Amino acid sequence: MTPLLHVALHEPEIPNNTGNIGRTCVALGCALHLIHPLGFDVSEKACRRAGLDYWSRLDVREHRSLEDYLASNTSARLWVLTTRATRPVWDGDIRAGDHLLFGKETRGLPPEILDRFSDRLLTLPMLAAERSLNLATAVCTVAYEGVRQMVGRGEVRIDPRGRLQTPAAI
Amino acid sequence: MTPLLHVALHEPEIPNNTGNIGRTCVALGCALHLIHPLGFDVSEKACRRAGLDYWSRLDVREHRSLEDYLASNTSARLWVLTTRATRPVWDGDIRAGDHLLFGKETRGLPPEILDRFSDRLLTLPMLAAERSLNLATAVCTVAYEGVRQMVGRGEVRIDPRGRLQTPAAI
Repeated sequence: MTPLLHVALHEPEIPNNTGNIGRTCVALGCALHLIHPLGFDVSEKACRRAGLDYWSRLDVREHRSLEDYLASNTSARLWVLTTRATRPVWDGDIRAGDHLLFGKETRGLPPEILDRFSDRLLTLPMLAAERSLNLATAVCTVAYEGVRQMVGRGEVRIDPRGRLQTPAAI
Repeated sequence: MTPLLHVALHEPEIPNNTGNIGRTCVALGCALHLIHPLGFDVSEKACRRAGLDYWSRLDVREHRSLEDYLASNTSARLWVLTTRATRPVWDGDIRAGDHLLFGKETRGLPPEILDRFSDRLLTLPMLAAERSLNLATAVCTVAYEGVRQMVGRGEVRIDPRGRLQTPAAI
């Protein structure tokens, strides 16, 4: 199956978050890109031990570095998620096959990446006094915003049982 | 501050999820309703110990039972979130001050609640073969869909820094 979206995590630190994001990706038919170094072990065995019984159904792709990830996806339409942006996710134009890049839990993405992709930055607006959301909740929220936009454009359909139709044609 | 939305959790079981949902509620100015019995301790002390340093900023309201919650919010516009619905969240009409009711992690909401509010059910569409999302990611996703709708209707504004304007006027 061609992934509906590509979720990319730069140097994720907290295994529970990555596990939770894997579950979202499986539920939505998204691929998960993990950009090393990671703060934990994602071997099949470690994931089985953590009870991630959906991990075997996940399209997971590992990259040695952010440069490697970018180099192996040069034709990707990339969206960069950051609390430092001013453009809300719903003002983006998220299409099937797009990449959604998220930074690490403690520090977000490196400033040079935000500069390099300054026209591709999106954010989830929060109240002014607040600093951040949990990474896994942010990923799920942005992925669904992408799905909502695709459904609105007729690129993806909802069947009569309220389920996403497998996007075989994408 | 009047809450932007009310998030209600029926008998939540996993403390990490409720902690994470509290963080989302603080970031968005939502109230959190916890409907007992809970699977954990939400005392100030327990939350401080878990590192939930935002908990003191959370508008949290506890209810002895689902009936008590419903009885004390009879004028609320209620949306009921369930994997058993066919109507996508973006086809709902989520307005400032609405309540979003979620079931427990292992079993969702009781069937009688789904029957009683059958015209208020909403779902986050997944692929046909998949069963569920993490509760905290689902709450964040639905809350942001509500915010997106309110921004679209001009009920809530985004300031030039990409932040939600405190909805003092709601």
